[in-house]
Amino acid sequence: MKESFKNHTIFFKNSPRIIGHYSLVGKKESEGNFKEYFDEVLNDDLIREKSYESAERKMLQRAIDKATISANLKYEQIDAVVLGDLLNQITSSSFSARELPSAFIGVYGACSTMAESLIIGSMLIDGSYMENVACGTCSHFSSSEKQYRFPLELGNQRPIMAQWTVTGAGVSILSKADTGIKITCATFGKVEDYGVKDANNMGAAMAPAAMSTLIAHFDNTNTIPKDYDLILTGDLGKLGSDILRDLMEKSPYKLGENYSDCGAMIYSKRQHTMQGGSGAGASASVLNSYVIKKMEKGEFKKVLFVATGALLSPLTTLQGESIPAVAHAVVLEI
Amino acid sequence: MKESFKNHTIFFKNSPRIIGHYSLVGKKESEGNFKEYFDEVLNDDLIREKSYESAERKMLQRAIDKATISANLKYEQIDAVVLGDLLNQITSSSFSARELPSAFIGVYGACSTMAESLIIGSMLIDGSYMENVACGTCSHFSSSEKQYRFPLELGNQRPIMAQWTVTGAGVSILSKADTGIKITCATFGKVEDYGVKDANNMGAAMAPAAMSTLIAHFDNTNTIPKDYDLILTGDLGKLGSDILRDLMEKSPYKLGENYSDCGAMIYSKRQHTMQGGSGAGASASVLNSYVIKKMEKGEFKKVLFVATGALLSPLTTLQGESIPAVAHAVVLEI
Repeated sequence: MKESFKNHTIFFKNSPRIIGHYSLVGKKESEGNFKEYFDEVLNDDLIREKSYESAERKMLQRAIDKATISANLKYEQIDAVVLGDLLNQITSSSFSARELPSAFIGVYGACSTMAESLIIGSMLIDGSYMENVACGTCSHFSSSEKQYRFPLELGNQRPIMAQWTVTGAGVSILSKADTGIKITCATFGKVEDYGVKDANNMGAAMAPAAMSTLIAHFDNTNTIPKDYDLILTGDLGKLGSDILRDLMEKSPYKLGENYSDCGAMIYSKRQHTMQGGSGAGASASVLNSYVIKKMEKGEFKKVLFVATGALLSPLTTLQGESIPAVAHAVVLEI
Repeated sequence: MKESFKNHTIFFKNSPRIIGHYSLVGKKESEGNFKEYFDEVLNDDLIREKSYESAERKMLQRAIDKATISANLKYEQIDAVVLGDLLNQITSSSFSARELPSAFIGVYGACSTMAESLIIGSMLIDGSYMENVACGTCSHFSSSEKQYRFPLELGNQRPIMAQWTVTGAGVSILSKADTGIKITCATFGKVEDYGVKDANNMGAAMAPAAMSTLIAHFDNTNTIPKDYDLILTGDLGKLGSDILRDLMEKSPYKLGENYSDCGAMIYSKRQHTMQGGSGAGASASVLNSYVIKKMEKGEFKKVLFVATGALLSPLTTLQGESIPAVAHAVVLEI
């Protein structure tokens, strides 16, 4: 078991509330296990844009737009947007933000971005610095393949450990309010690197980071896995979440039936995505649909959301580096 | 004049203090105007590493290391590192963080990153979430040229509006303490895009963002430029800072003699860098040397530090997009 990191967990005195949310996904994602939960499904991957990059941007803009409406707010009332994404220089985020009067806080945690943005957003509300903050991220299968792997036109074969980047976006609006799901505490992750060098096996690279954050979180909050109705990692995928289960067996915090992974769950078996979904949009779209809707219905009362990110770049892989990873955890309660 | 954004400015009740800092730069930077202020000068751009990317990473690691020592702390006492950089997927930051026991909070604001990391670090201290936080960034001329422009070996001519990416890193350690420079308030910037498409003219692209943040800041804090001993933008360069002066002439907040720009000042005229320096390391190294050292001597009592970032990517430029920009402002006082 790893040593624990006391101050990595932060507690919110004035728990921010999620007063609005929105998720939208591509067609493939809408045919998976969460089809009845997503707010919107794109008919067309390009959304009539000229490039996948501008389609990705449009998805994020739309999610911000609709989440703002769902919170009964106008753009002018969103004090800041805390956004990040996988494209170089997080341009989906910055280009979305230029359409808004809100302050822009750019973050990057790869596929852990949804959790990181929620934590920074929560600090802004808890500290009474701001009134309403939008937190979100997105990813797009085609822009990610192009940037991180190979041109789609090449028709490359996918290795068995691979995951499928989710085309999706999710945005939550945080505010000081009396009703709505509360964010009560959070644990920032430490970067872990166990020497995995295979950029097609992100699950294995990220599982140790998820373990490190989970152990720190349970230690610091005096909780155990059973205290949560759902423990949900981001996009470890099937193999990665199996590795995490194995790793946690050696800790005092064995994961039980209440543990799942957004990536492992988002596609159905018939969809042949190997280990499941990945991408910042995976956990963002699942959190802002399935998780939040189930909480609003009272089916989950306390959820531990642990988004996981592989902090590599195509260049570090070419230079023979291993893959550092990070996981940030957020507690949502009703 | 643009409308102002009330909640973009945040005030710290328990002002965090800068209890440690470190700056290091390359040889070229050490021959400029701030030569006597930098803590360390690299003899060799590669620092005996195999690639410029790993040299950049080593610079940031060293700055974190030395800043921690200057604060009389051990690594274990740094609760979090708030880092970002210009390389794809901010790998200088994430790879530096994997050497540390601290939590990793990845941020991205291009060359505004030093200010963004200071603001998020300040929130962590002000909210009593954490005890000590390291905030910093870096850039390297050769890794930036390679990623954003052309291979150095090509020997491309530099257009007259170009700036020279600073090889440098700067880190500040923030803490709850009774002595040291205080961070009293800050203004998050809104993304501005005035349609500039020339990726060799970043100063022009970023000046409107600096204006927008300055006006919001002065409005929200009821201050005027004369209230500060120094107003320092990040890396607008000579042309960009002239544009900012012009833009501010039309506002109620004309900039006077106390206004400067890190990029415009860092190199001497003899160094032929066209419009001066740029890069996240420009404002980070100048803040953590010249500015902080002058403040510690009492020569500056109140400084407004406004780091500026161009939020483009090489791909958005190729796709014909204009350049969005952001500027974040931080007030330092003794």
